[in-house]
Order: sequence, then structure tokens, then C-alpha cells
Amino acid sequence: MSNKVRIALDAMGGDQGPSVVVPGADLALAQHPDSTFILFGDQTKIEPLLAAHPRLKANAKLVHTDVVVRMEDKPSQALRNGRWKSSMWLAIDAVKKGEADVAVSAGNTGALMAMAKFNLRTMPGIERPAIAAAWPTLTGQCIVLDLGASIGADAESLVDMAVMGSAMARVLFDIDRPTVGLLNIGVEEVKGLEPVREAARILREEPLPHIEYIGFVEGDDIGKGKADVVVTEGFAGNIALKTAEGTARQFAEYLRSAINKSIWSRLGYLLARPAFQMLRDKMDPRKSNGGVFLGLNGVVIKSHGGTDPEGFAAAIDVGYEMVRDELLAKIGETIDRHAQVAAARAAGGAAS
Amino acid sequence: MSNKVRIALDAMGGDQGPSVVVPGADLALAQHPDSTFILFGDQTKIEPLLAAHPRLKANAKLVHTDVVVRMEDKPSQALRNGRWKSSMWLAIDAVKKGEADVAVSAGNTGALMAMAKFNLRTMPGIERPAIAAAWPTLTGQCIVLDLGASIGADAESLVDMAVMGSAMARVLFDIDRPTVGLLNIGVEEVKGLEPVREAARILREEPLPHIEYIGFVEGDDIGKGKADVVVTEGFAGNIALKTAEGTARQFAEYLRSAINKSIWSRLGYLLARPAFQMLRDKMDPRKSNGGVFLGLNGVVIKSHGGTDPEGFAAAIDVGYEMVRDELLAKIGETIDRHAQVAAARAAGGAAS
Repeated sequence: MSNKVRIALDAMGGDQGPSVVVPGADLALAQHPDSTFILFGDQTKIEPLLAAHPRLKANAKLVHTDVVVRMEDKPSQALRNGRWKSSMWLAIDAVKKGEADVAVSAGNTGALMAMAKFNLRTMPGIERPAIAAAWPTLTGQCIVLDLGASIGADAESLVDMAVMGSAMARVLFDIDRPTVGLLNIGVEEVKGLEPVREAARILREEPLPHIEYIGFVEGDDIGKGKADVVVTEGFAGNIALKTAEGTARQFAEYLRSAINKSIWSRLGYLLARPAFQMLRDKMDPRKSNGGVFLGLNGVVIKSHGGTDPEGFAAAIDVGYEMVRDELLAKIGETIDRHAQVAAARAAGGAAS
Repeated sequence: MSNKVRIALDAMGGDQGPSVVVPGADLALAQHPDSTFILFGDQTKIEPLLAAHPRLKANAKLVHTDVVVRMEDKPSQALRNGRWKSSMWLAIDAVKKGEADVAVSAGNTGALMAMAKFNLRTMPGIERPAIAAAWPTLTGQCIVLDLGASIGADAESLVDMAVMGSAMARVLFDIDRPTVGLLNIGVEEVKGLEPVREAARILREEPLPHIEYIGFVEGDDIGKGKADVVVTEGFAGNIALKTAEGTARQFAEYLRSAINKSIWSRLGYLLARPAFQMLRDKMDPRKSNGGVFLGLNGVVIKSHGGTDPEGFAAAIDVGYEMVRDELLAKIGETIDRHAQVAAARAAGGAAS
């Protein structure tokens, strides 16, 4: 890694494209002046925006392409039409070529994952990549993964996720041995839970460095902050995330209509405004924007497609932290150790 | 069905047992005076409570048993120790024998489902039972299933759930043709989604009476009220439910600490109290208590184990509605029709 953190941006990704990406990058640069940027996309659209952000312009390189992966493209379409030349591909490719340390895109998740897998490949010892994100809890934040990179997971994939998620928690929360829980449902004796139970056995019986396995957690334990890292397969993980977002929005909507119910409640709201501001900050989805693709030979960050510059800056910030604190090296460390334990077990040495 | 709705209660189920069940039943009776009750459990504990609720006592029969399924028993343990004789088994058995129209228990979910399956068996044409519950939305309520009866589901099971869920929606919401959505994740081209896609095809191409199939929905669409019925397999469904409960509790906690932040915010809260009361009512988990076991030859309702008398009364109320509006007949109707369509398709007649 160079002294500066070099960030490749898919400037065309997301619902708004460069009009969010450019000011977002400018905000991120203000926070981390030791960053430099490469923006990939349509120069006729990006240049005027860069001109309006001279601080960013002085720390950014612009690489033109007029090929864009659309939000509605299927992953296979995106690969067919956008490989080698789209802004999304080029941002990832900059990481592959060592020209950037991290790629950030607000483009479509399926396409981004397909391109990232195709170009960067999975790390040695990792079968499948996963998507992880920080989740606000009553006690702070936790990491939840997989949020939808793949569906279903065998025991070994769940253990890999525990390894990757705990490396991410070490980076983001600065703790040496994050607690890890496996997401499960209350009823134990149900067919289909074998991979989860087997992953639990491995994590319990073959302890790994930097992982404090605490057992099963249920859906309502995520928000309680019961574990620093919550591991599940991608279908349930994606649905948990979206359902939580939906419930938060629902609550905010109820609150809004409660406040507007009478003159007294509006007056009450005015008195309590700073408190409500705190509440809004806590629930602000922009603050926890930035899904991290884990398990690839490179760091790729997915921002929400509909975010604003502040939210996009938060996604860049996540990428910056991952690079500064050497996420990949941290994952590699634990993977190696896990492979040694597994090899010892295969050789019959685990019981000694 | 007799003129009265006959309700069998596992009086020992739940964290508090009879001290919640008896007053809960009394509240339910006040709401539905055309109910009668059979209470199964320890008469030394139930009789004094009945004495304190003379209205209920006049409409209830008490059947003594001192065998109780514990909250921590595994389903197999519960079956081994509690079959033929526990309060949970006897409540279900009253439905089986035609002595009651519905059984309600706040006991452990896995044991209740195991006993209900074992004793009542699944309806003709239904492979696997499911657990369904009403879920508060911005526009009212919807039905979500499966909430954890089984893990994973093939296309045919998902279609069965659509049939059963829409029958329940007809009963609870009094609409003739409920909208049905299949829970899915945003990324289409991922292995493992085949059953969901295949179920979508069946629902689209082989329309069923009383089902308005509207396509895929995502986790955040549940709370928006996008569909009257949301169908998914049990692992993701259970996690969605628990995660939503956790998020609602988290929001309530943030709100509480926001309100207590300053004298001004507390004053504001006092002014806006009626509005907050409305908010609390909306989010009150007691109001949507009552998981319905669907697909069995009999109606069984699962109440939250930790609920209070009001919550338990809500669970009884759900059971009452299911019986009054003939849930089982409504499911049977659509299942028969579905079987006809499938048979016609098998005979090559579907295309005509």
C-alpha cells in the first residue's frame, strides 16, 4: 500500500451517478486528506462537477468511459456488455492492477458482485465471497453477513464468514477478539439446520484466533448488540436487513403521524426537537451505508444506490478504514490458521 | 361446529402458565360471549384462579393433568414425555376428538407443532404445515408465513402456503381476493432461488380462486403493506419476524432515551402523550399475538410464551375468528381447486 489510500470510484453507479459520487468523494476527502481518487465514467458529466469541487479535482484522476452498467441489468448482461470497459468494471480493475486500494460503487449489487468475482477471484481458502455491513445496535454497531451474495451455505462457508466478519469487526470496532454469533431460529430440531449446527461445532471445538464464538443468536438479538459479528446465509441475511430497514421506516412514519396529530403534540415535538434529532441520527441509514464484499483478492464497497453525497461519503469511509487497517491481511491471517487446524485435524492431530 | 365456539386451552403453557391463561381467557370471553372453554392443567393451580373469575368459571370446564411440557423441552422429549397426558397434548386432542374447535397454547413452539402434527395430521393435499401470523403494516396488517415450522421449501410448498395464507387473510381481513407476494431478495440470478421462481411461475400461470398474485416482494415491502399475504420458507420468515421485533424494540428504546434527554424533551413528551400512546398501540406486540398453525386437520394457535393476559386474549381472539369464519373450509376449497388445475395440467389439459 502506498502512503495514500487510493480509491477507485464507479462515478456512474447509483440512481444519481456523478452528481452524488463527486460531492460524496469531496466530503470523504475532507475527512481523510490522505486519500486520492480515480473516477471512471463519462467525462462530459464528471468534469463540470469536478470543476465545482477544486479540492477533489486536485486529488483525483478522471478516466473516461461511456459504457455504463444500468441499475436494472442482470449480472450476466452486465458482464456481457460491461466487461473490460464499463465504469464499474474499470473501478474494480484498478484494484486488480494495483492502481487503487479499494473500489466503491453505488451501482447494481448483482452486477458489481459478478464483476468483482470474475476479475478479483476469491482469496485462497475462501470458497464464496460474502457481503457484510455494519448494523446499528443498542450498544453500538455489529457486523452482519452474508447480506445476499449467495443463497444457502454449508458449514465451512459459515465458518469462513465468521473469519471474514471478525476481521472486518477488528478493523471497524478496533477490538482484538470480536464476539461471533450464528443466526438461528428458536426451534432446534428442524431439518435443514445441519449446516448451522455443524458450523457451531467447528467454531466451538476448533477455536480460531481473533474469534470469540458465543453460540446461536436469533433475529431480535442483532439489534440488542448481543454479538459483534452475526453470521448467516445470504437469503435470510438479506431479508433480515431489508425487514429491519422497513420496520425502522415504519416506526419513523408512525412517529411522524403521531407528532402531527394535534397542536399539542406538534408543540411537544418542538420542545423535544434536539432529542428527536438524536433519534434521527441513530436511525439514519446513511450513517451505516457501505456493504463490504469480503473474500475477494481486493476490497470492493457497495453503496446504496439511492443515497446522497453524505451517504456515499460514508461508503467511501468504510473502504478507507478497510484499507488503512489492512482487512485483507487480517482475513488471510485467520484463514491460514484455520487451514492449519483443519489440516491437523485431517492428520489426526486435532485430538491431541 | 356447534353454535358456540369451543376453545381448548393449554392452561400450563407459557412463562406464567395459568396466572396468564385464566385471566386471558376471561378477557376473551368478555369480547366473545359465545365462547366456551376447556382448560387442561393442574387443578390445584387453576381452581383458585377460576374462583376469582366467576364469569369464565360459568363457561369453562377444567380437566386435570399434572404433566406439563416445559418451555425448554425439545420436540422429541415433549412427545416422549407428554404424549397422551400433558396439558398441551390434551388441548390438541380435544380438537382431534371434536370436543373443541380450536386449541390455544403459550407453550414451546417446537413441542406444540410436533404434537399438533402427530395428532391432527396435515390436511389432504398439504405436505407440510406452516406457522402464520398477522404483521402490522403502514396500511393495516398482512399475513406472513412460514414463521419457522420448517426450513427450506420447494415450489409446491410455497404455493400451498400462498393458498393457506390467503384463506387466513380472507378470515382476518374480510377480503375476497387477498394479494399475495413471494418474499425474495433483490438479486435475481443467484443459485438457490429456483423454488421461489418456480412457485412464482405456478401462481402466475395457474391462477387460483381467492389469490391475487402480485409477484416478488422484498423484506422492506412487508411493513409497507405491499401484499396482504407474504410467503417465504420458515428460516427466513422466522428471522424476518424476530428481526422486525428487535428493530421495533430498538426504536422504542432510542425514543425513550431521547425523551429522557432533557427537561424540555420530557415536557414535550407530556404535551404529546396522547400521540405517543397511539404510537405505542401501533407497535404493541400484544395486539398481533397469535401464530396460526396452518395445514392441519384442526386449528391450533400459538401465543407468545412471555405475554400477559391481554396478549393471551388476543391469541384466543385469533383462534375464535378462524373458527367462526371457517378457515379450514376456506383452505380446503382452494386446495381442491389447485389439485384440479394440477390434475388438468398433468392430463395435458391446462393449455386449452
